[in-house]
Amino acid sequence: MALPPTTAAELAARCDHTLLAPEATEERIAALVAEGIDLAVASVCVTARMVPVAIAYAGSRVPVCSVVGFPSGAHVSDVKAAETAEAVDGGAAEIDVVADLGAVAAGEWDAVTRDIEAVRAACGGRVLKVIVEAGLWDPERLATVCLAAVDAGADFVKTSTGFHAGAGGATVDAVRTMAAAVHGRALVKASGGIRTTDDALAMLAAGADRIGCSATRAIVDGFAATGGR
Amino acid sequence: MALPPTTAAELAARCDHTLLAPEATEERIAALVAEGIDLAVASVCVTARMVPVAIAYAGSRVPVCSVVGFPSGAHVSDVKAAETAEAVDGGAAEIDVVADLGAVAAGEWDAVTRDIEAVRAACGGRVLKVIVEAGLWDPERLATVCLAAVDAGADFVKTSTGFHAGAGGATVDAVRTMAAAVHGRALVKASGGIRTTDDALAMLAAGADRIGCSATRAIVDGFAATGGR
Repeated sequence: MALPPTTAAELAARCDHTLLAPEATEERIAALVAEGIDLAVASVCVTARMVPVAIAYAGSRVPVCSVVGFPSGAHVSDVKAAETAEAVDGGAAEIDVVADLGAVAAGEWDAVTRDIEAVRAACGGRVLKVIVEAGLWDPERLATVCLAAVDAGADFVKTSTGFHAGAGGATVDAVRTMAAAVHGRALVKASGGIRTTDDALAMLAAGADRIGCSATRAIVDGFAATGGR
Repeated sequence: MALPPTTAAELAARCDHTLLAPEATEERIAALVAEGIDLAVASVCVTARMVPVAIAYAGSRVPVCSVVGFPSGAHVSDVKAAETAEAVDGGAAEIDVVADLGAVAAGEWDAVTRDIEAVRAACGGRVLKVIVEAGLWDPERLATVCLAAVDAGADFVKTSTGFHAGAGGATVDAVRTMAAAVHGRALVKASGGIRTTDDALAMLAAGADRIGCSATRAIVDGFAATGGR
């Protein structure tokens, strides 16, 4: 767990500036990338379909993060691996993959791990974040799926897709549980419903190292307006 | 557009009995398949991840339908094609793929068509349904995306994933618009939020040939209870 940000730039550097609406146009992705470069965010996070577009606009000025198996996670491992390979070949620096939630629900931990390992193998040394859809699970199952992700090579465990109606978004409690479970063996990304500076700071204080958000400029500007307190 | 069903069995034969919750376990898929066989539905519709499970339980007793690029559609065409090929190799008889909604929003009709053509090529002679997320579009754009799907080889145009918070589910108006647009060159599948016998009959009366639903037994039993009127 990193120190809390003391400047707006430090907060921006913790944000994955995100646009995952499936009906987003190339024009909106271009605007996202431009804003991400301007704010100097950790990455711009887009759908696999939009990776080539994001890379074309980003060049090397901001890392591009692609979601994989998103948002259901209910694809076969080979397909998740192929999608990862295509994103990485296209220039994605980070991969956010949704875990096999059916296997999590059934407690089939070997299946959960193997699925993530296939994506880890396909993404090489890129940053791998595993989305566990935290809102679906009790704390014990949430901790277990986080450990399975770490065993499979995850660099981050990530709370939520933001697209599962029953699971909701990130919560302070979920971030705390996840950070305690991985205990420094991986980092935590909080995402889903984080819209304000206070939301973002609460997630960081709870143990998140990275925030996924769309209202990144408002979050960063809000922090700057308080003098970086 | 087919004649309205006159018996419960005819209604069941128009239903894709569906379970797409990403956290559904193999046990729940097995129960879905058993119910689908019992009701003699058109197909059981599952996630790509669950195709091998559904086939293992179904054998040749009920067709298995796999969703592809689901529910966002925001995957590259090669990945949608690979997912289709894997589902077909595994025994899926029908493929429901989500269109490239970003391209639809931008009016990039060539991109929309090429994306579907890649899936058509991968699924050979299997039944191909293209999900257009009808609730996102005005009637003119909805008609245009349906025609693009037909030009690319779709057997059905399908209203909704049921997983897009902003788009909602099937409506009578959307089904009418889609049926008028394809004008017999393809069939229409209504899905998303169809929970009662009245819902199902309204969609069929509006021009749907197929219904996607989870409460299939209640829908069919409700029809039987009215004497098949």
